[in-house]
Amino acid sequence: MSADTPLPAVHTVADLSTRIASWRAEGRRIGFVPTMGALHAGHLALVSDALERADRVIASVFVNPTQFAPGEDFDSYPRTLDADAAKLAEAGCHLLYAPTAREMYPEGFATTVSVAGPAEGLESEARPHFFAGVATVVAKLLNQVRPDVAVFGEKDYQQLLVVRRLAADLDLGVEIAAGATVREPDGLALSSRNAYLDAADRTRAARLNVILKELAEALASGTPVDDAIKTARAAAGEAFDAVDYVEARDAETLAELPPGPVDRPARVLAAVRLGDVRLIDNMAV
Amino acid sequence: MSADTPLPAVHTVADLSTRIASWRAEGRRIGFVPTMGALHAGHLALVSDALERADRVIASVFVNPTQFAPGEDFDSYPRTLDADAAKLAEAGCHLLYAPTAREMYPEGFATTVSVAGPAEGLESEARPHFFAGVATVVAKLLNQVRPDVAVFGEKDYQQLLVVRRLAADLDLGVEIAAGATVREPDGLALSSRNAYLDAADRTRAARLNVILKELAEALASGTPVDDAIKTARAAAGEAFDAVDYVEARDAETLAELPPGPVDRPARVLAAVRLGDVRLIDNMAV
Repeated sequence: MSADTPLPAVHTVADLSTRIASWRAEGRRIGFVPTMGALHAGHLALVSDALERADRVIASVFVNPTQFAPGEDFDSYPRTLDADAAKLAEAGCHLLYAPTAREMYPEGFATTVSVAGPAEGLESEARPHFFAGVATVVAKLLNQVRPDVAVFGEKDYQQLLVVRRLAADLDLGVEIAAGATVREPDGLALSSRNAYLDAADRTRAARLNVILKELAEALASGTPVDDAIKTARAAAGEAFDAVDYVEARDAETLAELPPGPVDRPARVLAAVRLGDVRLIDNMAV
Repeated sequence: MSADTPLPAVHTVADLSTRIASWRAEGRRIGFVPTMGALHAGHLALVSDALERADRVIASVFVNPTQFAPGEDFDSYPRTLDADAAKLAEAGCHLLYAPTAREMYPEGFATTVSVAGPAEGLESEARPHFFAGVATVVAKLLNQVRPDVAVFGEKDYQQLLVVRRLAADLDLGVEIAAGATVREPDGLALSSRNAYLDAADRTRAARLNVILKELAEALASGTPVDDAIKTARAAAGEAFDAVDYVEARDAETLAELPPGPVDRPARVLAAVRLGDVRLIDNMAV
C-alpha cells in the first residue's frame, strides 16, 4: 500500500467486526497494534513487527481517558489522527480503528480489570490508577479485535508485562509480542511526550538512556545491585529535576532483586521529570 | 444421548479448545452453562434452555475458590462430579468441562475483574468479594469457551445482571440468556445449598418465596414501595433467624426505586438465614 492510498478506517465495534469477519473468512492471520496516536517511528516499528507476524494489521488510535488521573495530560495529549492515518498507510497497516470514548465506555459502563503482580510499584507509585485503566482498555480492545498477535512496545516495559499477565489470566487467546524501543541518534527513547520538551530539556533528556546503559553495564559486569543502583540514582538526581525511580528488577516478574551481583535475567527501569514532563525508559541487563 | 452414554469430559483449556475448534469448523452454534456442580433440576433446565439456543452445549463444573470468603462453605460445598456428569448426559449436554483450580489460577495469576453498578449492594453487603470472584471466573470461562450464548439462572438475579454488564463492558461477544428459576412444589427455589437444611428448616424455608410473592403482588397492585417492603421485612423477620435484605429494585439496574407505587419494571429480592444456611430468592413484579 503506498502513502497515497487512504487507509480504511472504522470507528465502531460493529464496523470493526465486519472487517475482521471477512479477513477471518479468508483465513487471514490478524495482527494488532494499539496506540494512543501521536504516532512516531517507534509506533511504526510496531506495525512493521506486526506485519512480519500476521497477514493483516489493524492499528487502533484511542486516547484512553481512564488511564489518566486528574491533572495529568489527557486534555493536552497530542491528537493528530489525519497525520497518524497517513503514517500508518505508509507503514503498510491495513486498517485504522479509532473509536470514540462513548463507543468504548457507553452509559452504564461499570467494569474494571485490575492486575496485581507486575503492575505493582514503579509506574504505579506515581500513577496509582494507571494500570487499571490500561488493563481495562486493553482487555476491551483485544476482545473487540480478537487478533492472533498483538504487539506492545518495550518502551513501556511494565505495561508489556501487565498486558501479558492479563492476556494469560483472562484467557484472551492472543500472543503478546514485544517491539524493541526505537531511539533518537543520542539514545533518547522515542515518546509522544518528547514533543513537550523545550530545546534545553531535550538535550538533558538524553542523559536518561546513558544512565540506564551505564547501570545495565555495571550490573552485567558484576557490580552488586545496591551499589550500581546508588550510583545511577545519584547521576539521575544530578541530571533531572526529580527522579521517580531508578530500579533493577527481575525481567519476568519485576520483583526486586536480592542484593549482590545479578543472578537472573534483569531489567533496569527509570522514570524522571524535567520540569512538567515525565519520561520513562528501560533496558535489558 | 441416553443416560447410558458417558458424557465426554475435558479438564484443561487446551483439550476444551480442541473440542470447540472442531465444532466451530462444522459451523455449530455453541451454548454454555457454567455451574459449581451439585446439579439439580434448576441447572438441568438451564441446559435445556441452552439446547434450544445452540447446536452443542458445554456445561462447566468448577467450585470457584475466589468467590468464597474465609469462613464460607467452600470446603463443605457439595462436590458430586460423577453424579453431575450422569445428569448432564441425561439432559442432552454434549461436553463437560471440569477444570482444576490450578488450571484456572496457575502460579502468578494476578488479575481481577470487578463490576460496580449492578454488583453494588444486596449480595455484596454480606459478601463483599463475591462478585469480583464471580466476574473474574466468568470472564475466564467465557473466554475459554467463547460460546455464542451462555445461560445463567434468574435464581441468582444480581449475578445475572453483573454477568450481562461485564460481558457487554469487556466486549466478550456472547449473548447472556436468563433461565427461569425452578421451584419445589411448595415454591422453594432449587439451590445446592438447600441440602444443608434439616427437616424443620426445610419447612420454614418455603416461607421465603411466599413472602416475595406477596410483596410482588402488593407492588403490582399499587401499594407504595416503602409500605410493601416494610410488611415483607416484618414477615421475613418472623419467619427466619436473620434477614440480610428484602428489597424491591429496578429490574434492569438494581437501582433503588423511588417511594410511591412502582413505575417501572421491578424485581423483588431477598436473602435470609436459617441457622447457618443462607438462602436467596427473587421474582419479577
